[in-house]
Amino acid sequence: MTSTAYRAPDFGRPPLAGAPEATFAPLPADGVLPEGFFSTSNLPTYVHLGGRWSLPARPRMDCVIVRRGAAIEVIEPRRLKRGDQIAMGEAEDGSQGIYVHSEGFLGGAHSANEFRFMSTEVSRERPVNYEELAARLHEERRQGGYLVWVAGPALVHSRARGDFEWFIRNGFVQAVLAGNAVAVHDIEAAIFGTTLGMTNTGQPTDGGHGLHMRAINRVRALGSIEKAVEAGLIKSGIMHALVTHKVPFVLAGSIRDDGPLPGVYSNSLDAQDAMREHAVRATGAILVASALHAIAVGNMLPAYHTNLGGAPIPLMTICVDQTEFVVNKLKDRGTHQAYGVVTNAQDFMHVLRFYIEKCAPAAS
Amino acid sequence: MTSTAYRAPDFGRPPLAGAPEATFAPLPADGVLPEGFFSTSNLPTYVHLGGRWSLPARPRMDCVIVRRGAAIEVIEPRRLKRGDQIAMGEAEDGSQGIYVHSEGFLGGAHSANEFRFMSTEVSRERPVNYEELAARLHEERRQGGYLVWVAGPALVHSRARGDFEWFIRNGFVQAVLAGNAVAVHDIEAAIFGTTLGMTNTGQPTDGGHGLHMRAINRVRALGSIEKAVEAGLIKSGIMHALVTHKVPFVLAGSIRDDGPLPGVYSNSLDAQDAMREHAVRATGAILVASALHAIAVGNMLPAYHTNLGGAPIPLMTICVDQTEFVVNKLKDRGTHQAYGVVTNAQDFMHVLRFYIEKCAPAAS
Amino acid sequence: MTSTAYRAPDFGRPPLAGAPEATFAPLPADGVLPEGFFSTSNLPTYVHLGGRWSLPARPRMDCVIVRRGAAIEVIEPRRLKRGDQIAMGEAEDGSQGIYVHSEGFLGGAHSANEFRFMSTEVSRERPVNYEELAARLHEERRQGGYLVWVAGPALVHSRARGDFEWFIRNGFVQAVLAGNAVAVHDIEAAIFGTTLGMTNTGQPTDGGHGLHMRAINRVRALGSIEKAVEAGLIKSGIMHALVTHKVPFVLAGSIRDDGPLPGVYSNSLDAQDAMREHAVRATGAILVASALHAIAVGNMLPAYHTNLGGAPIPLMTICVDQTEFVVNKLKDRGTHQAYGVVTNAQDFMHVLRFYIEKCAPAAS
Amino acid sequence: MTSTAYRAPDFGRPPLAGAPEATFAPLPADGVLPEGFFSTSNLPTYVHLGGRWSLPARPRMDCVIVRRGAAIEVIEPRRLKRGDQIAMGEAEDGSQGIYVHSEGFLGGAHSANEFRFMSTEVSRERPVNYEELAARLHEERRQGGYLVWVAGPALVHSRARGDFEWFIRNGFVQAVLAGNAVAVHDIEAAIFGTTLGMTNTGQPTDGGHGLHMRAINRVRALGSIEKAVEAGLIKSGIMHALVTHKVPFVLAGSIRDDGPLPGVYSNSLDAQDAMREHAVRATGAILVASALHAIAVGNMLPAYHTNLGGAPIPLMTICVDQTEFVVNKLKDRGTHQAYGVVTNAQDFMHVLRFYIEKCAPAAS
Repeated sequence: MTSTAYRAPDFGRPPLAGAPEATFAPLPADGVLPEGFFSTSNLPTYVHLGGRWSLPARPRMDCVIVRRGAAIEVIEPRRLKRGDQIAMGEAEDGSQGIYVHSEGFLGGAHSANEFRFMSTEVSRERPVNYEELAARLHEERRQGGYLVWVAGPALVHSRARGDFEWFIRNGFVQAVLAGNAVAVHDIEAAIFGTTLGMTNTGQPTDGGHGLHMRAINRVRALGSIEKAVEAGLIKSGIMHALVTHKVPFVLAGSIRDDGPLPGVYSNSLDAQDAMREHAVRATGAILVASALHAIAVGNMLPAYHTNLGGAPIPLMTICVDQTEFVVNKLKDRGTHQAYGVVTNAQDFMHVLRFYIEKCAPAAS
Repeated sequence: MTSTAYRAPDFGRPPLAGAPEATFAPLPADGVLPEGFFSTSNLPTYVHLGGRWSLPARPRMDCVIVRRGAAIEVIEPRRLKRGDQIAMGEAEDGSQGIYVHSEGFLGGAHSANEFRFMSTEVSRERPVNYEELAARLHEERRQGGYLVWVAGPALVHSRARGDFEWFIRNGFVQAVLAGNAVAVHDIEAAIFGTTLGMTNTGQPTDGGHGLHMRAINRVRALGSIEKAVEAGLIKSGIMHALVTHKVPFVLAGSIRDDGPLPGVYSNSLDAQDAMREHAVRATGAILVASALHAIAVGNMLPAYHTNLGGAPIPLMTICVDQTEFVVNKLKDRGTHQAYGVVTNAQDFMHVLRFYIEKCAPAAS
Repeated sequence: MTSTAYRAPDFGRPPLAGAPEATFAPLPADGVLPEGFFSTSNLPTYVHLGGRWSLPARPRMDCVIVRRGAAIEVIEPRRLKRGDQIAMGEAEDGSQGIYVHSEGFLGGAHSANEFRFMSTEVSRERPVNYEELAARLHEERRQGGYLVWVAGPALVHSRARGDFEWFIRNGFVQAVLAGNAVAVHDIEAAIFGTTLGMTNTGQPTDGGHGLHMRAINRVRALGSIEKAVEAGLIKSGIMHALVTHKVPFVLAGSIRDDGPLPGVYSNSLDAQDAMREHAVRATGAILVASALHAIAVGNMLPAYHTNLGGAPIPLMTICVDQTEFVVNKLKDRGTHQAYGVVTNAQDFMHVLRFYIEKCAPAAS
Repeated sequence: MTSTAYRAPDFGRPPLAGAPEATFAPLPADGVLPEGFFSTSNLPTYVHLGGRWSLPARPRMDCVIVRRGAAIEVIEPRRLKRGDQIAMGEAEDGSQGIYVHSEGFLGGAHSANEFRFMSTEVSRERPVNYEELAARLHEERRQGGYLVWVAGPALVHSRARGDFEWFIRNGFVQAVLAGNAVAVHDIEAAIFGTTLGMTNTGQPTDGGHGLHMRAINRVRALGSIEKAVEAGLIKSGIMHALVTHKVPFVLAGSIRDDGPLPGVYSNSLDAQDAMREHAVRATGAILVASALHAIAVGNMLPAYHTNLGGAPIPLMTICVDQTEFVVNKLKDRGTHQAYGVVTNAQDFMHVLRFYIEKCAPAAS
């Protein structure tokens, strides 16, 4: 919002000193521009004409610069007629007689004095390069990397449960850091086919609100999640895959927890210490649908790692969330290296799995 | 927020008058409940004990009711010891001696006096039933239904362009209602491989901010989108598929438009009239990533249709958006029948296509 | 999305059996309707005309029903001419010859077969009744109520800190439940004038990223927050107000915590137990800008209380968040009684304080 | 997500060549650090010790560097004991023996290789400087600036209507650019006291869904909004204030419109042309609660203006929305100069008015 003094360009020095005059060409038809027209931005734009550099009247973006006698004006193409003379060229550095002065108000670090579309880093509108992501995961597995997954309960609720299980069983998961709720929902699904009493097609069930309490209680009766798997109480899902494939997991307790399940770290400092042992080994981290856990683990992760040999390499850090806010908050808490994927957790898991299956290397 | 007077249950009338006393059972181990325990909610809950119905102390949800002498109290399971006596049963209607009084504050339409999890209709946490959706689309195609698609620019930006093309080429699209921008981005992609100067992997390009203006200009020079397809300027994408498959489309103008492209309805009333001719024929509508167009078309759609024969049947109305807000706004503007899918447009198109390909009927 | 069979109205029974025919009146001018016109919805709408009830052609909402000979059709008012005959009346129950059949597809609990705008309960578009809210807070203070506040760090970050302090010093806060981070940010602000190194006008500071660590360390050196207040290290803010006004607080630890500050409950079960002692005394709860804490405390709160005398009264539960999602999630986790305020935490505190100051009772 | 090669610092050149060794100091008590400790980030951090620069083991942010013999390791302060030796100093440039290598992976424009919290420009967590904003508005009024306001319907819905009226009547508004819906809601409120049938405390009314149609019809019958004000049909609100204070407005039509009201530009190109006449005069723009209109007007605005005399000065562009998304989208569409206020439109108007009233200059 800051208003800063304007510093005009120095037209007396190269390259502007020796720059040619701007060239103009006529419209071939009403509302149709000659190819090679100059397309305006909203920044101060100087046109070299008649020996001087001047700003056209009525500046705005996505228009053209029209010359009418000595006057130059910014106008929408649709309002022009055949024969109207417009400025030509794509260069903005003065080399074709037009200079876009992007530094006029440049002060501190936050001057956004440059014209470009789609510059926001984290956006639902920015395409996700699933091919590259899939290739990275294959490469990590091939190299013996250590992929740490952080998961929020949405991963279980919204039917990504089966996909997450697939990633675990196929060697793409070296550690899972989550909360009590993820395990509770997963185990409720394994026992009753519901999460918080809702079926996997989104329907409520009678007496559904107590089902997670009954699931927790059965595991507590058996003594541990591992024993509940052995005893056949838990026959599928994320926790089943973790236990049977001996993939380590840390379940951190929170003030929201029911139960908790046996094995959950109720002390948050103990949980931190346990999680950090995985963070220090990480060669990559995938943080899905959990603000709290993503930021906690983000805090523990370096922006680089040296775990695959000598020199530091950037630590791949993927943050998946429904909104840009969580990814930006993660970055605002210091995990600047995070790459944001703004989508639904269920769909992310589904599409990523699809690409990983499709892109499997010949001999993996 | 309204505070209304409490109406106590009438314990003198059936079924409460003849209800049995509540039963209690001991914990088999510290922190482990007997199977069949009563799981509390946050509503007034009366326990029939010693000839009277009384509310336990310290009520809260997800706990159990503990009897200590004549006193009853709501306590977290983890805080209980072996032998503690807790209330049993799953019935909340008094038939097992416990009555959950959900009507105590019932006044106007907005009393939400019932206890259930996951009751919000539109939520990113609610699973999307892609199988059912795919089956519905197959059925519509089989029956000769008329599926109207409404698309926002995110469909083009975020690489769903190829998937949308696939839906058009495979007969799942009978009309497309969109704005100038959708066509502009699609045609920029066809000509330059970018949208607003960003590549389909999300990278900016030099001089990128002018590319959409150059794309528009070339189509204006040729006179129409159809001629630009014929002339080979547009060789792929959504508009190419629409033109070559003779699927009708309406491009409505807006105050944001550059150009506009030839064929765009600059007059919004003309655009409405053109869109309505498709709305009246619709047997289903899929509204993706556009608040303005979704609500506009929602306003034109009846909640039912009679287009596949005699009696009214509900008009399938799917609204896909990154946030719950747009779906709820659509409902708040009267399109109450809308089913919300809260996800990224790119991933929606990808996953839906995947399910449609997977679920293809034997002889379609 | 479910397609259910249509049940036509029974026109052979009252009140429809004896209903009059619909009346029609002419437009007084092009595009201008006679007062008292019937405004359409998107539901099946039967018109009694010529001895039979029939559905007009081309149904949609926000239009009128036009009679052309025996035919009736739904048309936009702007498309009509002077003299066109349109259906009159506001009744939708058949008593004026028009019947809106809202029950045609009514099946289970979730049929939303009713036509009304703005029916979503939690929405940024729904006005917040600050006057009523202010009156409720005054009433709570007057009655000796027990208002439990749950606060997220956004309350400190975004300059609501001074306002929250004001609520505490003026007797509107009986307990504060929060996390380590709230206290850390507040104390960083008290000592250094920053939160996470950002000034209260949003500017970064040199070396800012370490300031919260230095703040924590000084309090740890003194042994407790209370001692840091006594020693003059903390001279303002939320924690200062709580300590000097002897308002109890519970700071729950989490896996994200730095430090933690002395007095923070690192064990989440101990934290739960401490928080619940305030939940059971609550006559009202105000949950601001924290999903985790709001849901945790929501789980502990009954939907009613008996703390101000005999009969149950609804427990005022206000949830303030930037997005509808958190409020709906709170409801989806069982706290159905929550009233949602969808706004920025800073502005909420500011506006509420303003109304409370303005609406102060004569003798409070 | 890109993995780039690491470029190690050049320790053979100044200033690193001549840098001193790092200094260490002991903890005065368990878990309490000496003042002046070095607080870590997640970037590669070299410690000068024993004649060489080396990276400590187990890097992470918000910790300290501990020396144990020749080994150095990053550890959480809470895990340290009295007497443990930790690295001291706040400088990150090597001048105190510690060098944070933020350029190690620096490649293209998007390397975010710097450690700072709260760096996201547009965030609900970033405080809004209402004092500065109020001062700017006072200054604009004093100077005879031309403030263009863009308003979405949320401004009317959510009770900001009275505040907006106040801004108009007090000379802070030189033009209003909006859509048909803003005027429709405002006029419905003037006539019936509702918007879309909802009262200003958020309650529905009987027959409410037709009220906006009846309001539109009455204005159409009178011929124009101006005549409806003259005739006494519209006695309050935004449109009343605009008409009676002769503040110009442009109402752009859209495909969502009912009516439209007389005076609305149904042709979007005509609407653009009318809006641009205000954009070229603007010395400031305030865009509230409308993605479509904000982006449309943003496209027409230069990033600077010369309307208050000679040299270009930045054009104050405030964008107010409930979510970061709209502000970022506006920036992504080229309006990079926009300053984002992420809050509810109602509260924004209320708080800004409060500050403007409070900060009124002595002789304005």
